[in-house]
Amino acid sequence: MTHNDAIRLFAKTLQNLEQWMDKATAYAKTKSFEVDVLAQSRLAPDQYTFVRQVQAACDQAKYAAAYLGGKPAPSHPDTEQTFAELRERIHKCLSFLETVQPKDFTGAEDRKVAPPWLHGKWLRGDDYLIHVAIPNFFFHATTAYAILRHNGVDLGKMDFVGAFPMQD
Amino acid sequence: MTHNDAIRLFAKTLQNLEQWMDKATAYAKTKSFEVDVLAQSRLAPDQYTFVRQVQAACDQAKYAAAYLGGKPAPSHPDTEQTFAELRERIHKCLSFLETVQPKDFTGAEDRKVAPPWLHGKWLRGDDYLIHVAIPNFFFHATTAYAILRHNGVDLGKMDFVGAFPMQD
Repeated sequence: MTHNDAIRLFAKTLQNLEQWMDKATAYAKTKSFEVDVLAQSRLAPDQYTFVRQVQAACDQAKYAAAYLGGKPAPSHPDTEQTFAELRERIHKCLSFLETVQPKDFTGAEDRKVAPPWLHGKWLRGDDYLIHVAIPNFFFHATTAYAILRHNGVDLGKMDFVGAFPMQD
Repeated sequence: MTHNDAIRLFAKTLQNLEQWMDKATAYAKTKSFEVDVLAQSRLAPDQYTFVRQVQAACDQAKYAAAYLGGKPAPSHPDTEQTFAELRERIHKCLSFLETVQPKDFTGAEDRKVAPPWLHGKWLRGDDYLIHVAIPNFFFHATTAYAILRHNGVDLGKMDFVGAFPMQD
């Protein structure tokens, strides 16, 4: 599994996430409530809202692509409040992920990754992917899904994982 | 990131999960309720309980190690009902994961993985890891965490991700 594979998996999951938002929007319409109520929902009073979960999932994908691909991360300020704005955020993130090409990940496993929150310490690229990017990305994506699921949106696990390349 | 790295990440996360259960047990004691109430909790009436989420996370790790490592998967029937039994299930899973060694994953990326639920179709080993094992494992681990978090257990993201190998 290459570093490029991981970034493509993040992109696929963000595309799946937008489909969960489609289902949430349809559900809100059926129940005659404003879908952006869900944007501000959370599973515990001191946990991130749906908006923050989506922003965080996008950022985990963006920073993984930037750090491992040796590119500067574009700035995506956390200003979104609505489903419509979150869709734009996802699209901005996906557009950036597309700019990072397989060749950019050459040597990524040993690249020195020193995000500001490590205060001068660093992780090997492979360790960043394994211990930071993958668990954190899926943590936020799953929690976003769980917030919708908990509020009654008709989602199932296949919506979470999406399609996969089966062979005959 | 090797296939062995992925299995070690699953093992680490299952060990983290047991620590979330320690926190849940301490919380239940403080609040004077029976911790196994949480074992049967869920986020939506038609979603898996905590017990089933933990069983499913264990199975995702077990089958990934078995399929990618070319070993038969041991049978771990889903009979657990209590936190104590779930701890045993986690330990059984971790013991099996330890039997699959780095050398067993040689050629795993192209190994033909044909789980029964694909009804005769199959996935390349790398595709199984990327599209099935990683998203499903983290889906169930995060949902188990979310059930505890939603019920008031004092958990934070560092409990989810655990320690990582920083360098000076």
